[in-house]
Amino acid sequence: MTAKLLAERSLGCHDRTDATEFESRRRTVSAGLAARKLDALLVAFSPNLRYLTGFTGSNGCLLAMPEAAILFTDPRYRMQAAQETTARVKTCKGTLVADVLAAIGRLGLKRVGYEPARMTCDFFEALKARLPMRASLVPAPGWIEELRMVKSPEEVARIRRSVETNSRAFEQTVARVRPGMKEQDLAAELEYRMRRLGAEKPSFETIVASGARSALPHAQPTAARLRVGDLVVVDMGAFQEGYASDMTRMLFLGRPGARVKRTYRAVLEAQLAAIASVRAGVPAAQVDRAARRVLKGYGLERAFVHSTGHGLGLEIHEPPRIGMREKPVLREGMAITIEPGVYLEGFGGIRIEDTVVVTAGGCEILTPTGKELRVI
Amino acid sequence: MTAKLLAERSLGCHDRTDATEFESRRRTVSAGLAARKLDALLVAFSPNLRYLTGFTGSNGCLLAMPEAAILFTDPRYRMQAAQETTARVKTCKGTLVADVLAAIGRLGLKRVGYEPARMTCDFFEALKARLPMRASLVPAPGWIEELRMVKSPEEVARIRRSVETNSRAFEQTVARVRPGMKEQDLAAELEYRMRRLGAEKPSFETIVASGARSALPHAQPTAARLRVGDLVVVDMGAFQEGYASDMTRMLFLGRPGARVKRTYRAVLEAQLAAIASVRAGVPAAQVDRAARRVLKGYGLERAFVHSTGHGLGLEIHEPPRIGMREKPVLREGMAITIEPGVYLEGFGGIRIEDTVVVTAGGCEILTPTGKELRVI
Repeated sequence: MTAKLLAERSLGCHDRTDATEFESRRRTVSAGLAARKLDALLVAFSPNLRYLTGFTGSNGCLLAMPEAAILFTDPRYRMQAAQETTARVKTCKGTLVADVLAAIGRLGLKRVGYEPARMTCDFFEALKARLPMRASLVPAPGWIEELRMVKSPEEVARIRRSVETNSRAFEQTVARVRPGMKEQDLAAELEYRMRRLGAEKPSFETIVASGARSALPHAQPTAARLRVGDLVVVDMGAFQEGYASDMTRMLFLGRPGARVKRTYRAVLEAQLAAIASVRAGVPAAQVDRAARRVLKGYGLERAFVHSTGHGLGLEIHEPPRIGMREKPVLREGMAITIEPGVYLEGFGGIRIEDTVVVTAGGCEILTPTGKELRVI
Repeated sequence: MTAKLLAERSLGCHDRTDATEFESRRRTVSAGLAARKLDALLVAFSPNLRYLTGFTGSNGCLLAMPEAAILFTDPRYRMQAAQETTARVKTCKGTLVADVLAAIGRLGLKRVGYEPARMTCDFFEALKARLPMRASLVPAPGWIEELRMVKSPEEVARIRRSVETNSRAFEQTVARVRPGMKEQDLAAELEYRMRRLGAEKPSFETIVASGARSALPHAQPTAARLRVGDLVVVDMGAFQEGYASDMTRMLFLGRPGARVKRTYRAVLEAQLAAIASVRAGVPAAQVDRAARRVLKGYGLERAFVHSTGHGLGLEIHEPPRIGMREKPVLREGMAITIEPGVYLEGFGGIRIEDTVVVTAGGCEILTPTGKELRVI
């Protein structure tokens, strides 16, 4: 395909969220400018731009001001932007930078916030080199990511649909798993099923790792064939309507022995304990500790080599992180994964993962898939 | 999956290119530093890093110097980096920036080149804030991208395998196309087949657009069903062993009428003319003109709304661009697409695309798929 055509296509599906939701998000930003002593905020990072406008094109930039917002894009996206957003759209003949600078000058903006973790040096230098007199660029890191942490009911509904598609794809595929199947073919089948069920694409490269390789947390699907006696990790997620899902389940081919059963029980108890500890007002580290405490009881705490979970939404990984040293406090409406795991060299790895939404009194588990070890 | 696990996995497959090829590329960079008055070049953009080292992790940074090169990464990637690269690996306990700064100080580097289009403001500021006295950061834009334009025989072999997988997936799927099939199911099937044949993933989101929608260059696959009388654009590509392929073919359901046949012939002639004009030493714009001239003869030049092609390799779109105003001259070993198309509102769109490699006397067409209109 041509570069132009790729650019012209949206990143995911067109966003059908009610325009009022995007407008309300932009009002939140507009209202927050004064407290940050900013006249405007410049947003170009694609998930943040989509969050504030609904625009899914790959080249765009929002200038959010107290009373208005302008979305700058190029002519390839003129029609798409008009369809996707109620923000004012400025189609730029030349570079976006030139038109953003002209607007900064014309509107007399002095302090313009930007996202330093998201902007390239090239873009920043192009802005800075021709910034109007008395105007300055002010770093405003992580602001939109902070807003995105708490999901609206509409966003939760999308994550729920993504989770349901993912779980259905898992069930349809697991029913066909047999010894002799290649890891990579199982992964291909899972991804095919999720697409057939309405997903745009996988939210990350599907993990299928069997036998001793399940103990390698970074195992990619290979041409290895599933064999009787194998533990198999399946870690998969979809993007649907732009929103991510994420789930891990374990299969066992044949009759699991005592050690597999005991280790599975330990991880399951750890996962349930972590879920039970989730509640608005609880620090993220406390959820991580709940999982670790259970594994310690089984002497497995050193085999749990990663953190307990992460936020997800327009990205597969977004704040908050659910880890040992994470101070952020959980809030109602956060969507997070809970996924303790243990990795034992020569034996294998076991991980169990759900997507949950934090509520005032606990959490809602979105993932409908049963958590028993799937014996095949 | 956990953020950590995602980070731990490679972006594609582990790179089995002979280590000497990476070493030779690093020597080219080392040898070019003096002419640019640089003591070192800092490379963090993932395709460039992979090109120079073979490292496929998502967090890494190479400091290339006249006599040596150090790859900085974090402990998650320690084992992977050791497997993938022969460059010296420094595993950083804290941020990569801190260790890069320490090396700049220890080695007494003065002028350190960086990639301004690839580095975030955050990273740049973190470097600049603690740069040793007398050291400075010097923009070195597009250098590695320039090297990447000309492919080695080993790279051409990988692109060829990616192209072959892609074409086989197309043939296997087209044999199953029937009226009533949904666009998005056809896309899912194509992507499933390429994975089954050894691809890591699609190199972009597969385009399947039928009927009048084929005239919308940015059409994503929808739930629309293929109907008798429909033109169908299929634009697809794979990543295999890290390298991209890209192909467009047209299907017709039923008996094509005179206008479809004539328009198809025009695009095919344009594509063949463009291919015939490819040769080392020819400016990219001349190839674009060859396609446009043919379409003009059919009165279709205004319906050809994009450029004729683009380079591909570790990215699906990389230099050179094959467009109207592109001055770069083609060189032996460049891998490019040739893909003229016409888009007629209410009628439909027709595009034909191959991947070719520039040779001294012309080009080799890698795409083995026949170019007739596939009548179903």
